[in-house]
Amino acid sequence: MGFCKVKIVVDAFGGDNAPLEIVKGCALAAAEYDVEIILCGDEDTLKKVLSDEGISDPRIGIAHASQVISMEDDPHCILKEKADSSMAVGQRLLAKGAGDAFVTAGSTGAALIGATLLVKRIRGIKRAALATLLPAAGGPCLLIDCGANVECRPEFLHQFALMGSMYMRHIMGLADPRVGLVNNGAEKTKGMPLQVESYELMSKSGSYNFIGNVEGRDIPLGRCDVAVADGFSGNIVLKTFEGVGLFLMKEIKNLFIGSARGNIAALLLKKELSAMKKRLDYSEYGGAPLLGISKPVIKAHGSSNALAVKNAVRQAVRVVEARVIPTIETLLRDENISKE
Amino acid sequence: MGFCKVKIVVDAFGGDNAPLEIVKGCALAAAEYDVEIILCGDEDTLKKVLSDEGISDPRIGIAHASQVISMEDDPHCILKEKADSSMAVGQRLLAKGAGDAFVTAGSTGAALIGATLLVKRIRGIKRAALATLLPAAGGPCLLIDCGANVECRPEFLHQFALMGSMYMRHIMGLADPRVGLVNNGAEKTKGMPLQVESYELMSKSGSYNFIGNVEGRDIPLGRCDVAVADGFSGNIVLKTFEGVGLFLMKEIKNLFIGSARGNIAALLLKKELSAMKKRLDYSEYGGAPLLGISKPVIKAHGSSNALAVKNAVRQAVRVVEARVIPTIETLLRDENISKE
Repeated sequence: MGFCKVKIVVDAFGGDNAPLEIVKGCALAAAEYDVEIILCGDEDTLKKVLSDEGISDPRIGIAHASQVISMEDDPHCILKEKADSSMAVGQRLLAKGAGDAFVTAGSTGAALIGATLLVKRIRGIKRAALATLLPAAGGPCLLIDCGANVECRPEFLHQFALMGSMYMRHIMGLADPRVGLVNNGAEKTKGMPLQVESYELMSKSGSYNFIGNVEGRDIPLGRCDVAVADGFSGNIVLKTFEGVGLFLMKEIKNLFIGSARGNIAALLLKKELSAMKKRLDYSEYGGAPLLGISKPVIKAHGSSNALAVKNAVRQAVRVVEARVIPTIETLLRDENISKE
Repeated sequence: MGFCKVKIVVDAFGGDNAPLEIVKGCALAAAEYDVEIILCGDEDTLKKVLSDEGISDPRIGIAHASQVISMEDDPHCILKEKADSSMAVGQRLLAKGAGDAFVTAGSTGAALIGATLLVKRIRGIKRAALATLLPAAGGPCLLIDCGANVECRPEFLHQFALMGSMYMRHIMGLADPRVGLVNNGAEKTKGMPLQVESYELMSKSGSYNFIGNVEGRDIPLGRCDVAVADGFSGNIVLKTFEGVGLFLMKEIKNLFIGSARGNIAALLLKKELSAMKKRLDYSEYGGAPLLGISKPVIKAHGSSNALAVKNAVRQAVRVVEARVIPTIETLLRDENISKE
């Protein structure tokens, strides 16, 4: 241990397929990237899983945690009743600098509360937000906030825009990400008071490339790279997106099954179908970054398999190496100086 | 004229393809259904289109209107500056009983303002709402409101639920439509104050089958028959739905073009592809009813072609024949009596 560039703390007991798929995903990541991993969770169980799977990578360590936060638990339990859960132990390790980033497929609410109160926000950031990459024409679009903050103020949305823009620039390599405000029409007078005031604030900021209001359809059609929303609206976009995607993918699947002609067509299009599936698959993008926290926290999907966990670890490594958080900190400092 | 059961007033100059596709759609409807049609718009132009198209159906009449409302016009112009537009003339004909229902593919805003102020709301209804049928697993789901009322109160949402439920019962033939409240989670404490208070009000009403909160994904996945939302959230659902649909339909199309294998697969699946396209095609459902108005007003999509116009006329006929509005009126009266 100690020779790799980056050390990632992983909640080994978060998500539907924990701990097996989490451990397997971490082993894949350790084999592929220059990374050390600390698995948080019950030590005996983790040792047994590692041994059963024949994993003996010296770059995978264990930090014991006696508890697990379930989806039924009140997220606030991370602070007291479940302070020795795999999620809490992991976030405290991150907070004290024992690792560079934290990955969990567990409860989003607990991850948010833990990140905000144990790891703490970036100085000057009012609210942490959950960001998700959605498949879109021409490349993924980052939706921020997807549900962390149901009620927002214009300044929160401005900060989401700034953080989302930095993420797309440094992680996805876009030179000048187009930032749109999710609204019910293009005109600047559209929306509720929150949207009207946020438009005003965002159009005055020089910290990102604000292109104005975007509608729900503009996101999949690739008309912006960052879609900024309050957590309520963002959650509606995210869930509708997921639902329509599932519905239509099933319709596509039904085209090819149940008939000999369908089976032949599926064989003919095997390569194209697999490429399409990969292009539209969330897990390819890794997890959802919690932006606004002073250290990288990545929320992987609850149903993550080993591949999705590996991708989430890769994403955490990128956020560390690309210095996304220090860049956001600098930008905030510059904004505050220019205001004075 | 005068022998058909139902008379539909149509805005012949509303929408991207007016007047040609509107006139053609009305001719198709008159040929297929027991219906009279009054086309509103410039008389000379309409006579020329009818003659050019070889249409001489005695059940198609003309009501002259010298103006047209464009998408750039302020919707309020229907009341004064454009009081002689095809939309205004049509709505006044409806208001005075010269027709049983009104169909327009023109400006949604002007249709709403005209319907509310010229045709007037049902007594006791606080706000008219725009409802749209969305394709979903197991049959379409009615989303109400899709954007007419950006800011709502709980009582509005309760009334949207009542009207949407009646529409799905009488027009789509569902025995007991499942009504869901669009929210960011299933628990009754979820959402902003509007959602929390609306949940409370809706769960106490016995006028429809309230199944609780639904998330965006539940709509395409067929978990409710009526999805109730404030106009802002509803618009986000609708536009995201449309956008993801367009994006994925293009992905599907790309599977089949550009290669000999793709072309063969398309031939093999010709029947299935055409059935799927039809199942997912909005225009098959007709238009969006403006619910809460004292007479039926149907808003067809701005890009409606002749087929979509024909379907919107068919839908208007059904709303008249199924006595949707008198049923809503009775239900409201019963609710008020039970409150006293």
